[in-house]
Order: sequence, then C-alpha cells, then structure tokens
Amino acid sequence: MTAATPVALLTDKYELTMLSAALRDGTASRLTTFEVFARRLPDGRRYGVLAGTGRFLESVADFVFGEGALAAVADFLDPPTLDYLAGFRFGGDIDGYAEGELYFPGSPVLSITGTFAECVVLETLALSILNHDTAVASAAARMVSAAAGRPVIEMGSRRTHEQAAVSAARAAYLAGFEGTSNLEASHRYGIPAIGTSAHAFTMLHTTAGDSTTDDWERAAFGAQVAALGEGTTLLVDTYDVRSGVANAIAVAGPRLGAVRIDSGDLGVLARQVRAQLDDLGARDTGIVVSGDLDEYAIAGLRAEPVDTYGVGTSVVTGSGAPTAGMVYKLVEVDGLPVRKRSSHKQSHGGRKAALRLARPSGTVTEELVYRVGAPPETGTGARELTRPLMRSGELLTRPDLQAARERVAAGLAGLPWEGLALSRGEPAIPTRLVPAR
Amino acid sequence: MTAATPVALLTDKYELTMLSAALRDGTASRLTTFEVFARRLPDGRRYGVLAGTGRFLESVADFVFGEGALAAVADFLDPPTLDYLAGFRFGGDIDGYAEGELYFPGSPVLSITGTFAECVVLETLALSILNHDTAVASAAARMVSAAAGRPVIEMGSRRTHEQAAVSAARAAYLAGFEGTSNLEASHRYGIPAIGTSAHAFTMLHTTAGDSTTDDWERAAFGAQVAALGEGTTLLVDTYDVRSGVANAIAVAGPRLGAVRIDSGDLGVLARQVRAQLDDLGARDTGIVVSGDLDEYAIAGLRAEPVDTYGVGTSVVTGSGAPTAGMVYKLVEVDGLPVRKRSSHKQSHGGRKAALRLARPSGTVTEELVYRVGAPPETGTGARELTRPLMRSGELLTRPDLQAARERVAAGLAGLPWEGLALSRGEPAIPTRLVPAR
Repeated sequence: MTAATPVALLTDKYELTMLSAALRDGTASRLTTFEVFARRLPDGRRYGVLAGTGRFLESVADFVFGEGALAAVADFLDPPTLDYLAGFRFGGDIDGYAEGELYFPGSPVLSITGTFAECVVLETLALSILNHDTAVASAAARMVSAAAGRPVIEMGSRRTHEQAAVSAARAAYLAGFEGTSNLEASHRYGIPAIGTSAHAFTMLHTTAGDSTTDDWERAAFGAQVAALGEGTTLLVDTYDVRSGVANAIAVAGPRLGAVRIDSGDLGVLARQVRAQLDDLGARDTGIVVSGDLDEYAIAGLRAEPVDTYGVGTSVVTGSGAPTAGMVYKLVEVDGLPVRKRSSHKQSHGGRKAALRLARPSGTVTEELVYRVGAPPETGTGARELTRPLMRSGELLTRPDLQAARERVAAGLAGLPWEGLALSRGEPAIPTRLVPAR
Repeated sequence: MTAATPVALLTDKYELTMLSAALRDGTASRLTTFEVFARRLPDGRRYGVLAGTGRFLESVADFVFGEGALAAVADFLDPPTLDYLAGFRFGGDIDGYAEGELYFPGSPVLSITGTFAECVVLETLALSILNHDTAVASAAARMVSAAAGRPVIEMGSRRTHEQAAVSAARAAYLAGFEGTSNLEASHRYGIPAIGTSAHAFTMLHTTAGDSTTDDWERAAFGAQVAALGEGTTLLVDTYDVRSGVANAIAVAGPRLGAVRIDSGDLGVLARQVRAQLDDLGARDTGIVVSGDLDEYAIAGLRAEPVDTYGVGTSVVTGSGAPTAGMVYKLVEVDGLPVRKRSSHKQSHGGRKAALRLARPSGTVTEELVYRVGAPPETGTGARELTRPLMRSGELLTRPDLQAARERVAAGLAGLPWEGLALSRGEPAIPTRLVPAR
C-alpha cells in the first residue's frame, strides 16, 4: 500500500455514528481491546494461513481524514466528531500473530488496544484486508502443498477486482507461489513477474489466402522467440497441440524454455507432449500447464511430467472460500472482559494471547489461548504466537514478505500429516482456551 | 474510479511481452477486434447482470504509463516498446451492451476495436473490472428479486478486499440494493450510506459492580438515540432479544425507527419481535434482519414481518460465484474472422453485435448474435443491445449509474417467469448465433 492511498473512507458508516454517540456520552475514551479471530475455518479446511497483517499495519498510518474525507462525512456527523476525526491518528497498541503463521478456529490473530474511538474506526479496514488476503493465502498454501515442490504461478488477476488482484498476488506469493502475472504486484512487492503470450498473439498472425494455421503459428512463435529469446514459453494449444509442439521446436530449436498447454485433459496431453519433446531432442524444454487448475487438479497431475502449474481463478477466489470469516470483536473495556450472549456467536472475553505446543520432532499438537498476564504453565516445545506489532501507533518492525513466506513453509512442515490432506476434515490441531487462573 | 488512479500496471506481464513481439514483427499495427463474453453463466444461474462497463470506460483514460510505470517495466522490455508505452493512449472504438443489461452465454457484452497494440494491453483491466462487478451484480439481482420489494442493504465491505468493497457496493446498488454501509462508495458514487451501530457499542457500556446487561444496553441505546435521534435503528440481540426490544422502546419510545436482529432464527425472532413491538405500541418501528443472508434466506423470510434485509458476505462474494468467467478473445484481424480450435473453448470469429427479441407483452424470448454489418431480418419486438460506447478513444456518454439501475429492473421485469426462479436451471432465454449471410 502506497503511503498516499486514502483509506479513511474504506469504512462502514456505523463506525463513525458509533464514534459520534460515544464521544457524546464520554465512553469514547474508554480503554478497549478488540480481537480479530475466525470462529471456524472454511468448510472442511484443516488450517488457515494468516495474511494481510503487513498490509494492515502499513495502512494504519494512512488512516487519516483529510479535507476531502471530512467533507464526505460532514452531512451526518456533529462538529465534535468531525473535530475528533480531523486530528485522528491511531495511537494505540497492536499485538498478534506474525503474518504467515497458520491459524485455527479461535486463534486470536490480532488484537487492537486503545480508546474505543481509535479502535472502532479501524474495524472495516482491518477485516477487509485480513479476510481477503487470508482467504487467498489459505487456498494458495493448499495448492503449493499439492504441487509437492513444483513451482506454481499466480495468473488470476483477470478473475478478480483489479486492486484485489494485486493483494491476491502478494498473498499467493506469501503462501509459496513462485511468481505472478501481475505487474503492479511485482513492482510494489518485489514478486517475480512471469508471462509470455496468449492465444490472441498466435491468432494475430492469421493471414488470408492459402496460408495455414501452421504458418500462422510459426510466424507467431518466431516473433516471440525473436523478442524474448529461446528461453521463452510458447503456448502450443491454439490450433492443435501436436502441431503446436512441432512448430515450437521447429522455430525455437531444442533449447526452447517451455511449452504451455491451457486446455484439454492436461495429464494426457502432458505425457504426449513430453514424449514428443523428448523425441525432438528437446529434453530440457519444460511443460507448463494451466486452465481451471485448483488444488485437487494440481494433486491429480502429480504423476504427470508437468514442470510448472499456472493457477488463476481458484487462487484469487480462495478456492471456494473467498473470505476468511474473520470478525473484529470487543473483548475488554477498562479492564473488564466483555462478551456477547447471542447464541452461536459467543466470543470469549478478555485480551488474549496464544502459544502453540509441539512434539520434540517439531510437529505441532495444540494451540493454547490464554488471558494476557495469565500464561499457562507449559514444558518445552511451547512457542509464543502473539507478539507486539505496534506500540502507541508506531510500527515496531517493517512487514517482511519474505519472512512471512518462510513462516508459511515452516508452518506447513510442522503440521501433523493429516493436516495437509486436501480432503475435508477437522482442524489439524485443537485450539484450547485456558481459563484464567 | 478517480482520474488520478494509476491503472497501467494492473496488467498481466504477457500483454506487454506480446506487445513487444508484435512491435518487432509489425503485427502490432494490425486492426483487431477483441470481444468480451462469458461462455456460460455460473452453475445453475438463469441470467447474469452486466456491471463494470462504466468503471472500465472511465478507467481507459487513466491507462497511461507515467514515469513510475515505465521504470517498473523497463527491465524486461526493449526501447521501442517503452517508447510506444510512453506515448500510449487508447485511441480505438468500444461497443457493447449498456451497463445493467442482462446477459446470457455468448452475449458479446463488449467489443474493443483498434490496433493489436492498443487492444491487447487493456485485457486484464477490462476483465478484472467486468468479472468482479458482474459477479456481484448478478448475485445482488437475485437477492433483490427474492426480497420482492422490501429494501436490501449492502454491508459486506469487511468480507472482501478493501477496494473491491467499494466496487461491490456500486454493483449491488446497480442491481437494485437500497444503499451501502461503505462510506467511500457513497462518496464516490452517490449511493445512500446506511448504518447505525454494532454489538461493540452496547458492550462498550459495560460497567463493573452490580449493574446488569439491561443497564448497559439502556445506556448504549440512550447514547445512540441522543446522537442519531429516535429514527435510528437499535441492535437488540447483544444479550437477549426480548429484553433488547423492551429496552429499545423504553429508551427511544414507540416512535423508534427500527430494531435490528443479527443472529438466531430470523423468521421466528421477527414474528416474536413484531408482536412485542406492537404490544408496546411501536407499530411503525421496523425490523431489520441481517446475519449470513443470501438470496435463499431472503426468499425464506418472505412471509415474515421483515422490513429490511442487510446482506454482507454473500453479495460481495457473488453468492457462490465470485467471478463471472468473462473472457477477452481476439475475434477479428484486419477484417478476417479468427478463432481458436482447442476443444471446449471455441469462440466464434468476427466482430459481432446482438439484439433481443420480445413478445408484444415485453417478455423476452431469444437473443440473436450476428456479425456486424449482417443484421438478421426481424419483425417488431427486436431491441438492439450493442451500442457505440467509445470512438477514437473518446467516451461517447458519461456512465450513468442510475440509468444502469433502472435497466436492471426493466431487464428482470422482462424475463420469462421461470427465469426469476432461484433454483438451478438453464439460461432464461437462448442465445443464438446467426450465421453471416
């Protein structure tokens, strides 16, 4: 997120009307803690990957009301509220899990502490960022896991909102994807940008008269190799895959980087294409497959000679779970734990932290959630998950995307083996709330 | 979209590498038409609502490469390509369906005509905007239809990317929603902003000692009514709905605007609350329900005394179909129709337009898609869907959100009755490709 992005209006109206009412009756200055957590994982998922924390922390500094924003809310707020917003800058504390940590139902992934006034206004922004980025990272991690070491590329920008696409590329990279097609994401976050050509480029070389699809395809391949070199990836399924591969090698030679197949039965085609490439002496030419891949399709291609997966729709839309279901709940007011009593939405009051227990092998066994100041007694193998992220409005450490990416990989490596299964199941480890002593 | 938003990097890398190769071999200047269409509707849907056209048309003017954008792509493009981008401004023609039109499989909702160079670079931006906005509007229209005249409010910002939230509010409003919780959407697009308070505001009024939840709730309600007036909506399910309603009327009096119920069996609660409000003399106090509503839940509450629906997650995520599946395909090159021959992805070549046939009653019966310049012979009741939107890079008319909203309502009114069913089914009308004569 660039520093100049105005974010204060990316907010639900009720946050400001609540602020107005709280300023009027004096409760706005009460010291509160809000907690971000998911009551459950998406249906059948065994773990989630926390993402967006870095984007959120950096956006807090941009959450200020300039003249334009103040004018936009002036019609429904009273002068004291407008005065408050004019001088607003979050000055509270934020604690939470590091970005890239796995999470489970009830994990207190983020807690925001400050006056009610300064905490309540951040609700929508915090949830928008965390719900989106976490949904994408959680799906992406399953794909990376299913790919079992083969690189996976994110190329779904066109399937999601143009700005969400940039954040989706970041979240997928964080979860272990190798790169993205999205130029803004590459520019903003330093993610490797990857891309070669589309069917349109081959069809562009259509000419009238007696020429054939082979002529057109060879002309297109020739132009691409001239521009990008023999290490490029040629898209071979515009007309006929077998002809496409023959044309690719005829034009680029046996040192062609890769061919891409974007349609058809990818497993069958990958095997045929591998054999054809080998016959043509192009033993080092890779095979990239794409076309409606998700984690299940990726897993289904494990035995096939595929070198790289390109994933679009399913990763940017969270593979069936486009939002992570995180909520932002008031858990403490002036030191008093508070909770709602409506059925099915019970949240446990009080400001909380968490630690995760592991066997000596490193495999995690349980997550313990406890009231801050009342840590449970644990033996060795306990790792604190909650860390200070912001103090008095100041970011303690700059978000580090590479570190988050490494954290996801370490988290997946530490899951019990059943936790990595793609099939529907229970959370990989239980989350247990430790009663305050 | 504000004029200053840089959009040129919201693009897949391959568009620029294709551009580079096409500039090198001279094909970049070929006159092309790209067509945006959906091969199918989301599973079981009977119609789609085209949205995003206005946002896309306005963004085309912002699609320029400033110094920052050029620097971001300088490492992988050659000087002629960078020179081309430095002077880039789309100068072609755009035709298509007006925003808010219904569409069906194969409807040529947008066509972009110009040199290959200027058309290819718009692919990702066009698809991102149309796929996102159309997915939301298509889901939203089903909810509006299910609500059968009762107002529906969009309050899903927190469940989707912070910028997608703004566009989602616009798409939902276009489809007939009454308003949004999102302040930026209200500011940018003039959509009514709606919002009152959350559970946190009630819990904020927790105090220690002998006080009760009734005390806290009455304090919160009192503060809200003092700030927002008796016409406000009080959230009554923080502790106990029956007590909440009693507290609400005790504090605000029988002229309270509305109460909101956000959890539990909404149908049962709505009936109980209606009876309780009537008993308390609050016959004009409305009932707002929210909490994981989608089109099916809305329809299921039709017989209950509900006045307003608040919808979050399901509308901003397209209610199971978070992307519309639109594609951007090259259909014509220098006057030659072109098409891909891969299985399952056949697109019909040539620049096309469409019209829709209707009975004298206004009920539509069929959509005819034809090559531009070869319109089919039709009797009365044929309505042209394709209209000129941009000529030589100049927008012909400013996008009009209100007009688009009226178009959706008219479109739904003209569907055959089975087309409005929420159940899974075939497209409401067939789309037929008329062979060129």
